[in-house]
Amino acid sequence: MFDFDTIKDTIKRGFKQYMFPVGLILFQCVFIVLYAVHAKYGYEVDDNSTEIISRNTPPPKGAVEYYYSFFQDVHVMMFIGFGFLMTFLRRYSFSSVSFNFLVATFVLEWAILVRGYVVDWDSETKSFSVTVKNLLHADFVSAAILISFGAVLGKTNPAQLVILALAEVVMQIWNEHICVTYLCAYDGGESIYVHVFGAYFGLAASYSLQHKREVESPKEGSSYASDIFSMIGTLFLFCFWPSFNAGTAFGDGRVRAITNTYISICASVILTFTVSALVGKGKEEITHIQNATLAGGVAVGVVSDKNIGLFGAMIIGSLAGIISTLGYKYLLELLKKIHIHDTCGVHNLHGMPGVLSGLAGIVVASMPWRSLYTENLGATCLSGGEHRSAGTQVGYQCAALLLTLGIAIVGGLLTGTFLRLSIFSTPDNDSYFDDSLNWHVPKDFVAENSALGSLIKSILPNQIQLEEMPNQIALNPNTLEVIQETTCRQ
Amino acid sequence: MFDFDTIKDTIKRGFKQYMFPVGLILFQCVFIVLYAVHAKYGYEVDDNSTEIISRNTPPPKGAVEYYYSFFQDVHVMMFIGFGFLMTFLRRYSFSSVSFNFLVATFVLEWAILVRGYVVDWDSETKSFSVTVKNLLHADFVSAAILISFGAVLGKTNPAQLVILALAEVVMQIWNEHICVTYLCAYDGGESIYVHVFGAYFGLAASYSLQHKREVESPKEGSSYASDIFSMIGTLFLFCFWPSFNAGTAFGDGRVRAITNTYISICASVILTFTVSALVGKGKEEITHIQNATLAGGVAVGVVSDKNIGLFGAMIIGSLAGIISTLGYKYLLELLKKIHIHDTCGVHNLHGMPGVLSGLAGIVVASMPWRSLYTENLGATCLSGGEHRSAGTQVGYQCAALLLTLGIAIVGGLLTGTFLRLSIFSTPDNDSYFDDSLNWHVPKDFVAENSALGSLIKSILPNQIQLEEMPNQIALNPNTLEVIQETTCRQ
Amino acid sequence: MFDFDTIKDTIKRGFKQYMFPVGLILFQCVFIVLYAVHAKYGYEVDDNSTEIISRNTPPPKGAVEYYYSFFQDVHVMMFIGFGFLMTFLRRYSFSSVSFNFLVATFVLEWAILVRGYVVDWDSETKSFSVTVKNLLHADFVSAAILISFGAVLGKTNPAQLVILALAEVVMQIWNEHICVTYLCAYDGGESIYVHVFGAYFGLAASYSLQHKREVESPKEGSSYASDIFSMIGTLFLFCFWPSFNAGTAFGDGRVRAITNTYISICASVILTFTVSALVGKGKEEITHIQNATLAGGVAVGVVSDKNIGLFGAMIIGSLAGIISTLGYKYLLELLKKIHIHDTCGVHNLHGMPGVLSGLAGIVVASMPWRSLYTENLGATCLSGGEHRSAGTQVGYQCAALLLTLGIAIVGGLLTGTFLRLSIFSTPDNDSYFDDSLNWHVPKDFVAENSALGSLIKSILPNQIQLEEMPNQIALNPNTLEVIQETTCRQ
Repeated sequence: MFDFDTIKDTIKRGFKQYMFPVGLILFQCVFIVLYAVHAKYGYEVDDNSTEIISRNTPPPKGAVEYYYSFFQDVHVMMFIGFGFLMTFLRRYSFSSVSFNFLVATFVLEWAILVRGYVVDWDSETKSFSVTVKNLLHADFVSAAILISFGAVLGKTNPAQLVILALAEVVMQIWNEHICVTYLCAYDGGESIYVHVFGAYFGLAASYSLQHKREVESPKEGSSYASDIFSMIGTLFLFCFWPSFNAGTAFGDGRVRAITNTYISICASVILTFTVSALVGKGKEEITHIQNATLAGGVAVGVVSDKNIGLFGAMIIGSLAGIISTLGYKYLLELLKKIHIHDTCGVHNLHGMPGVLSGLAGIVVASMPWRSLYTENLGATCLSGGEHRSAGTQVGYQCAALLLTLGIAIVGGLLTGTFLRLSIFSTPDNDSYFDDSLNWHVPKDFVAENSALGSLIKSILPNQIQLEEMPNQIALNPNTLEVIQETTCRQ
Repeated sequence: MFDFDTIKDTIKRGFKQYMFPVGLILFQCVFIVLYAVHAKYGYEVDDNSTEIISRNTPPPKGAVEYYYSFFQDVHVMMFIGFGFLMTFLRRYSFSSVSFNFLVATFVLEWAILVRGYVVDWDSETKSFSVTVKNLLHADFVSAAILISFGAVLGKTNPAQLVILALAEVVMQIWNEHICVTYLCAYDGGESIYVHVFGAYFGLAASYSLQHKREVESPKEGSSYASDIFSMIGTLFLFCFWPSFNAGTAFGDGRVRAITNTYISICASVILTFTVSALVGKGKEEITHIQNATLAGGVAVGVVSDKNIGLFGAMIIGSLAGIISTLGYKYLLELLKKIHIHDTCGVHNLHGMPGVLSGLAGIVVASMPWRSLYTENLGATCLSGGEHRSAGTQVGYQCAALLLTLGIAIVGGLLTGTFLRLSIFSTPDNDSYFDDSLNWHVPKDFVAENSALGSLIKSILPNQIQLEEMPNQIALNPNTLEVIQETTCRQ
Repeated sequence: MFDFDTIKDTIKRGFKQYMFPVGLILFQCVFIVLYAVHAKYGYEVDDNSTEIISRNTPPPKGAVEYYYSFFQDVHVMMFIGFGFLMTFLRRYSFSSVSFNFLVATFVLEWAILVRGYVVDWDSETKSFSVTVKNLLHADFVSAAILISFGAVLGKTNPAQLVILALAEVVMQIWNEHICVTYLCAYDGGESIYVHVFGAYFGLAASYSLQHKREVESPKEGSSYASDIFSMIGTLFLFCFWPSFNAGTAFGDGRVRAITNTYISICASVILTFTVSALVGKGKEEITHIQNATLAGGVAVGVVSDKNIGLFGAMIIGSLAGIISTLGYKYLLELLKKIHIHDTCGVHNLHGMPGVLSGLAGIVVASMPWRSLYTENLGATCLSGGEHRSAGTQVGYQCAALLLTLGIAIVGGLLTGTFLRLSIFSTPDNDSYFDDSLNWHVPKDFVAENSALGSLIKSILPNQIQLEEMPNQIALNPNTLEVIQETTCRQ
């Protein structure tokens, strides 16, 4: 009996330790088989570049060039943008940037497959083809998962992240497919299908993961350097957001998507600085600048390629900046009270601005000359196909937003509950927001927990108010005492 | 009476504290109205992408694709490049990267408007249209303002920066408009209209702002990490500079602008390392690498799209690297003596290389087969319109350079004087180069001013010369004494 | 006599100190002359953009636009990617990012010249023309040199790096020219001609440079911040690798090169995380994430534009991730034993994956319907020119790989031996991996060697095992003792 138990234990421990790598390998093998059987290259129709090139005349610019630079911008947003935006946690930067890296690549492989089966399946050739546009779509899907990742950041282990990604990808793609093909709700910048979905899925998952567990750690804070690293992410997201919203738009729509997003996100930057100064008694909060500044890109998404006028984009962006900043200032704590811990504040950056974008879409839908909604209609659309009325469109825009919210929340709750299974060994409060759980860390990382580190910490409290009178600090008696007490007691 | 005074005080204080956010909101509202009344999308002439797309053939590549990737490169230069280049100040990195972010976005909104009225106004439709090319031009304008920002970095508050931007944008655009439309002086890379203007405007503003106030702070220094952050900015500026100079060029000019800038900036990198080692007795100075390396991009600007030959570009770039590095080594201090404090050394990176570029333009103008100056002429040009002689062009190249210098310096002096008004409450020497004035800073930022920080500082002086013999440092008696004195006195 | 000696000494010292800057200036002058005599702009055939532009219709998209955005991506890979990837050394970050900057620019100027004479020479006009494609090729060459740089990082001075670059460029270009023109071995992503060549050249150079000299320094380590800086490089290399492999491909080949590289590098990321966790007992190693994740981009290079199927790309990428990670875990130490010190582990990231890529190329060559090898054949090809058989192609793929290995290793050994000449005054073990040798460093850099620094170091050893139980650390008695001993002895 006893023997049997130990064996069981060993197996359990071994399973917990190796579930993550072994699981990844298995998935990878399955992926390879599926790609071998069903994926093929998406060539362009009668492309004769070769011949032309040889004649030393300018090569033809096809779909590749039409999408590639937009794709690359979005690609940078996913890996540098999201990756570094999350490095703000002073003791969790390795995990933030690296797990973002892992999850994103895993999602890209998985999303191409799922979208291939759900969206691009060619029943004749029994296959789906992969073009640059498909890569771009895969990046959009990964955005949703990375947003959810932001909500549970620091409180999950890699194994849980991979499972979460595995499940969310399927739901996100099905939800988008239904909304686009049958509800025919437009969402140029994917604000509903990506931002709203990702945010509320993540919040729901975080809720059921944390259920009845407190999140209270001194490690959940930034350092001066980690905050600057985070700004790298912010600025790349800012710069390339027009590429995100205009990625799949074309013709006049592309011009509108670029200019609208550009203006909207500029407006949200300005309003973020404004509101942050107002609520901060004249001082800015770097967290607001890192995040809320981008809300304008999210909020304009649904109508980014619509004829809303540059002023419309500015209004939307300004509102987004206000809402998002206020969310970071006041809402985060309230959510904590109802046991929703949102590490990166995705509710403020993606959730609320995403809903705002959905509402903007509904309002605009009532103005056909602005929504040009017929461009998005096809034979498969419910209620009249291509001949749907503007009023009906309004209804379906609402439907898409509500359906997305529903699927995201239910899906997130279920996934979160599943991830609580003991086999996943969720990290506990002590190892939250700490790289040493998952990483071999350099010496100076450990130092912070050392006697010297504690010495520093013991000095800090006295400094906080002294901040106002820096000239006196050096002489501050308390601090000297502290040092004596800590270091010189005989 | 007394009562009245207190009220006046409260109002004054309130005004000073909220002038910045409230002012921003007002501007934003005005902008929205103006955009609503006068801005419209700039569509391409008979673009029928939609239909073509549906036929699944390669979509047409229009003006959007012709400018977009260049625009994105320049966009990154403004926000990542300039933003991070300025993070070198060890205690001012939040402000550097964030206020750069704020100012740039504010300028983008404002510049599109002003250029719309001054340059692109269509008197028939009573409106101006916004294309990707306009966004690119707005980025060029913001470059000028961000350069000026570099001169006053750390010595101004956000409110002052916004006012400065507001004024400078108008002057910069008018100056460029006059020089391009009437003087018809070519300046492909905007070295005169952006770099010279921005640099001397900033220096003049810094002069009148600092008038009779000393700038002497131990905080005006870099840390090892902040210097590396700064290199992020340097390298992105370096990589994308060809996009900056070739942004608005076309045809053969585009090929020349790209290759000339590429070669010129490479040359300035090499000469910077060379001169830095020569004047540093075999050791390099990171400040030179962060800045002077880019001088070649500025110096080739005016003639970037001209037929100067790659060797010409190399010569210009080499000279720029030499001048700029020597400027950083010797000129900064001299300028300080005449009360011009130039935080980022914009005079060395943008001022002198910009003037050098103007001179190159004058020389090249005397060689019509190289300047191809007629390409830049139109009916509106003074002295003969399109039939202007090469000799005349030489004169007008001089005129443009001098006019720009004049407007920049006068404009900068006036703006700086205005910004000295007490209501703007310029920070004083103690709060220069310090984030804690405008930011809620993380704990470790304060630590530097703490007892531990002062302990570190007190140890450092002894280290400087010890640097040469690291093995002895641990045993250095002085330092141990210092620690005792600081921490263990009973 | 005595006098004569001192003079000799002074000259020697002066020579050693100024050889680097003076040498650079001389090269620059020679370059300028050569560019003046032989380089001209590479215009497109009958390009009439100007006229078209004026008619306000979309401008034509020529070769510039076809290559430019790919070129810019690769450019960022060279300067940001390689530059920051190497910043992981905690006390050598200035040198890593800056010397990468210098070497890259020097190589770009030099490579355009050498390729101009070797590859693009037009014997009629006695000149060669420079287009965006040439700039792209120059970037490819610089990649090889920067890889070699990674092997000797921290153990060489700038003068040596420049000489190494000077020699390697010539050999790399000749080797590629022979393999492409006569052996006609395909290598779309330059994995053989750039990665294999660069890696083994660097390793050979490192071997002969270090011959009979030990490399053992506590400074050869990372810090928490420097590891995150390094991730900037990793992620940009990851994002833009498809542009590297697809840079010179066209038509269908471009689609395949992009998608294959995308999938292959994603696979290597996932396998790297997997293997790193397996060999690390459940904990990840940041070094693996920084480097091995990119092996998939290298390994797919040779066949990147071939019809290998996405599953083929995944298999190659997965293998690369495994090999590379294991290499970092186990091989680095073994190589050290045979006196090959590989600072960045280029053997694991570029060497082995490059060889793997070469083998993949050989295997694929035996499947003509996949290798489409005839596309790469021309009249100059040995054994049958354009009518070469698939079997023959297999042989020539082997030949190209072996020839490259041979030239790289022999060339590296010779160059390394030459660089050992005393005049180059190679830094010795004490000044390895230390910026203070070549830089004027900020105060906080020195602090690490100060009494406080040594105090921190003395505390660390006790921390390493405590890492597991962070709650006890503050109370750890040993550490307190240490502080007393160090600071409070009377």
